[in-house]
Amino acid sequence: MAVLCKPAIAIPEHVITNEETLELARRLHHDHPQLDLALSLIENTGVQKRHLIQPIDEVLKHPGLDARSAVYETESKARVPKVVQRALDQAQLEPPEIDLIIYVSCTGFMMPSLTAWLINTMGFKSQTRQLPIAQLGCAAGGAAVNRAHDFCTAYPDANVLIVACEFCSLCYQPGDIGVGSLLSNGLFGDGIAAAVVRGNGGTGMRLERNGSYLIPHTEDWISYAVRSTGFHFQLDKRVPKTMEPLSPALRALAEEHQWNVGKLDFYIVHAGGPRILDDLSRCLDIPPEAFRFSRATLTEYGNIASAVVLDALGRMFDEQSALEGHQGLIAGFGPGITAEIALGTWATDREGSAA
Amino acid sequence: MAVLCKPAIAIPEHVITNEETLELARRLHHDHPQLDLALSLIENTGVQKRHLIQPIDEVLKHPGLDARSAVYETESKARVPKVVQRALDQAQLEPPEIDLIIYVSCTGFMMPSLTAWLINTMGFKSQTRQLPIAQLGCAAGGAAVNRAHDFCTAYPDANVLIVACEFCSLCYQPGDIGVGSLLSNGLFGDGIAAAVVRGNGGTGMRLERNGSYLIPHTEDWISYAVRSTGFHFQLDKRVPKTMEPLSPALRALAEEHQWNVGKLDFYIVHAGGPRILDDLSRCLDIPPEAFRFSRATLTEYGNIASAVVLDALGRMFDEQSALEGHQGLIAGFGPGITAEIALGTWATDREGSAA
Repeated sequence: MAVLCKPAIAIPEHVITNEETLELARRLHHDHPQLDLALSLIENTGVQKRHLIQPIDEVLKHPGLDARSAVYETESKARVPKVVQRALDQAQLEPPEIDLIIYVSCTGFMMPSLTAWLINTMGFKSQTRQLPIAQLGCAAGGAAVNRAHDFCTAYPDANVLIVACEFCSLCYQPGDIGVGSLLSNGLFGDGIAAAVVRGNGGTGMRLERNGSYLIPHTEDWISYAVRSTGFHFQLDKRVPKTMEPLSPALRALAEEHQWNVGKLDFYIVHAGGPRILDDLSRCLDIPPEAFRFSRATLTEYGNIASAVVLDALGRMFDEQSALEGHQGLIAGFGPGITAEIALGTWATDREGSAA
Repeated sequence: MAVLCKPAIAIPEHVITNEETLELARRLHHDHPQLDLALSLIENTGVQKRHLIQPIDEVLKHPGLDARSAVYETESKARVPKVVQRALDQAQLEPPEIDLIIYVSCTGFMMPSLTAWLINTMGFKSQTRQLPIAQLGCAAGGAAVNRAHDFCTAYPDANVLIVACEFCSLCYQPGDIGVGSLLSNGLFGDGIAAAVVRGNGGTGMRLERNGSYLIPHTEDWISYAVRSTGFHFQLDKRVPKTMEPLSPALRALAEEHQWNVGKLDFYIVHAGGPRILDDLSRCLDIPPEAFRFSRATLTEYGNIASAVVLDALGRMFDEQSALEGHQGLIAGFGPGITAEIALGTWATDREGSAA
């Protein structure tokens, strides 16, 4: 049985508070016709601060895609191994015991992806499968969990390492001044998360069923324009309302599993913005308190893309509130518009690995 | 049992012969100090012609990454559905019977990837899983087969659609004039392939075991520099010699399966260049004739990246030489340097789907 063990998280050292973000928006866009709207959207995100891999003055200067690609590579190599090592330690595994590395990141692009370098650097075996995913955006955290679950279902003794490395600040585009872009500039943060899915043993969420759902004809609601300046994030104003069409998909998957989606013991969902959590609460009749982990991630780090669900899960581990047999759900949401949903039950490994 | 059914291939209409390539190289690089070396390397590729999505005059003008991204999107949407439809027809499946779409492409980047648009356009169900892979380069054809195999192992009734869409001409970089780049300019071609892995039934290669192998410390031998002008392919001159360190990995996987890698009935390998096939033949003691399918792909289309293994497999289907029980191997090679290897046995579906 595949168990998603305790995630490790690293949040970079450069902090920008929401007050600083608002002040920056006022200064940079003082003559913007919709400045007030943008400011109120940023205020309503509920984000209190975000963490960035570079000081904000560096972030604001776009040095060109060549330089940004170099920053992505340098910073990911400098920061990812420590997070991976902690995730392995928490799962009580050594690198050679990992059979597949799923590396998700939509905010920088390398070929080969970081998987090859990690294998060479950290002592993973040469036979480790590599699955880099760059095009599922914020849904990729959920997708990584689900593909790891599939892999352990195919090979019950296998262990999978998941890494989500998101440097959203490297996608800041000074020339994009639509309201959606200004909001995004105040919403996204940087963060790295890693977690192991163990085929045998381990304490955490025992993965039991997964599913994906694409809301028909929304493929241009969240998208990148790929330009000489890099990835340009394009956010349609209909996106905040997507929990309405997605809620039935969550409900349906739970029903396939003979569960009532409104009555689970825990919920780890992608906190893309505050509206997502409020609407899910309303649409699925779930108390807002159930989303406290996701809300804390959003408040303290902003939207850290595919790393959100792993960070929120880490917070639940820290709270130590999940008990053996508790039933819960993980859901990542992202471009497509796609939901990647996992259902599972809390399991404690009495023989070994710590919570 | 997962059966890889007959691939469908589409090769674009704009043809450039090797003579034209050589003449172009002579004209564009008449003062290049290593022109003779580049010309002889191009001659030695064994490529007779390649097919491109645009006339060569268009390819040679780099219109900027913004425009190239637009071409990638337009051309993939115009060309991919027909190939997918043929692959489905050949597997005797309808779109709603597909559970996972694996879309591999390293020569253009979209987010969301084409999977979302394909689902919306071609009648796949909203619950179809999406697995876009952009960072495994030429190895991604083998990786797609292997991840499809894993998925069908986890869910024995599932069907997986694989799509490989490679427009290598969109990565032509006029400013890159190292010998490796000139060689690449004469080697890579455009092509699209699709194939279905059926969980039940189907005629084709029954997938039995797969494995991956990364040659230690070669992650910078094949790589992209991601720049304002797009992906810049960087090829180390040591790459042609990689079959020597990779051959033992192929041999070892076959031995795990109680097979002798030199005595299989068929071989479908990535024809990155002519040296790969010659060296594999020598290192594994396999008659050169065994690589006729891969060699034909290279000769007629050039290196079409992740689509090579599917095209070569399609040629074996056309030859109708594979018989029930024949044992064979598929291997994709690409950045990392990574090999993605599949072992399987030819299976004929007597109840239905045609060869």
